[in-house]
Amino acid sequence: MTVGDPVPSPVSSAERTLAEFLQRLASAEPTPGGGSAAALAGALSAALVSMVCRLTLGREKFAAVEAEMQQTLQRAERLRERLTPAVDDDAQAYAAVVAAYKLPRGSAAEKQARSAAIQTALQEATRVPLSVAGDCAELLDLACFVAEEGNPNAASDGRVAALLAEAGLRGALHNVQINLPGLKDAAFADRVQTEVERLLAEAQRITAGVRP
Amino acid sequence: MTVGDPVPSPVSSAERTLAEFLQRLASAEPTPGGGSAAALAGALSAALVSMVCRLTLGREKFAAVEAEMQQTLQRAERLRERLTPAVDDDAQAYAAVVAAYKLPRGSAAEKQARSAAIQTALQEATRVPLSVAGDCAELLDLACFVAEEGNPNAASDGRVAALLAEAGLRGALHNVQINLPGLKDAAFADRVQTEVERLLAEAQRITAGVRP
Repeated sequence: MTVGDPVPSPVSSAERTLAEFLQRLASAEPTPGGGSAAALAGALSAALVSMVCRLTLGREKFAAVEAEMQQTLQRAERLRERLTPAVDDDAQAYAAVVAAYKLPRGSAAEKQARSAAIQTALQEATRVPLSVAGDCAELLDLACFVAEEGNPNAASDGRVAALLAEAGLRGALHNVQINLPGLKDAAFADRVQTEVERLLAEAQRITAGVRP
Repeated sequence: MTVGDPVPSPVSSAERTLAEFLQRLASAEPTPGGGSAAALAGALSAALVSMVCRLTLGREKFAAVEAEMQQTLQRAERLRERLTPAVDDDAQAYAAVVAAYKLPRGSAAEKQARSAAIQTALQEATRVPLSVAGDCAELLDLACFVAEEGNPNAASDGRVAALLAEAGLRGALHNVQINLPGLKDAAFADRVQTEVERLLAEAQRITAGVRP
């Protein structure tokens, strides 16, 4: 968008220290930005859901939910594995859009190639946050389950997980929506818009009962 | 709360990699938990606010908001400096509560000393998330400002910052509220309750206009 080279460094965000990641987020470089932060909010939510599961499993008091809690732990661990690399996927997808806009547009053939490259990059930059939003919607459901049925000593951890999943979901959808006006494939754009509305309705439904 | 030693390691969370921090959050150790994740959500929000300021400052198009944007950047940087160590402060305050509950209670004098230690620790474990919530309320305001008045190319980053500030605020308040029933100093508990209600009303007021 502005200064310097937007291509992300080969060091993954997961390998950076928190202080370093925060510093990069705060810099004038457009990536990592809100899309990456939304994916990280999802990963933090997934980690908290796992913690509440682990503080609940294997205790006689919670034997009635043992099986569902075990499944929840497995789903949360899988979602954390998906959302952690998505922090970088979002930055890379954005960098590809920026690179496509910089392609030459001297001849008619160049213009056509550039336009096609922009559309391919925009579709990918739409798919990444849409996938993050879907994962966060699943986490929102899991977080509400552990907050209500898990170890009550960790109920506030479950509630924070729900808040982070909701922030990740809505934040990722903002990053989907900024691409919609640029998409020329109307069928693709329609499918995306339908999915955005479905996920927002889902968030609304799930969070109705968990606000403080 | 359960397994092992809850005393936090001398390595600060800011010095850990993201993957390592997520792994510790997901573990059965109760710290770091929701309180730390809420503080981190605030720090992520602060970093995004700084980014939007930096993508706005020094451009003729946004000259009208240059001074306010500069002040916003300074406030966001200060809030990030406060919220990053709060990730560990929250864990330490919780560990102190756990340690106080483990004090001996054989004699009447021991019982009295233990009760006093628990109250001191609970008050600190209340003050830390209350301070995080206050910082997040300030950030929510700054995030809404940059989302509306900052570089429109970074508006979605400002909106994600607002969502993370709100999650940090509400998440920190959950961590305040779990301590309220244990507080014996009624005047302190009343002041906390009043501040919780003020911050929730503030969040409600600010976010009314920024949801997708």
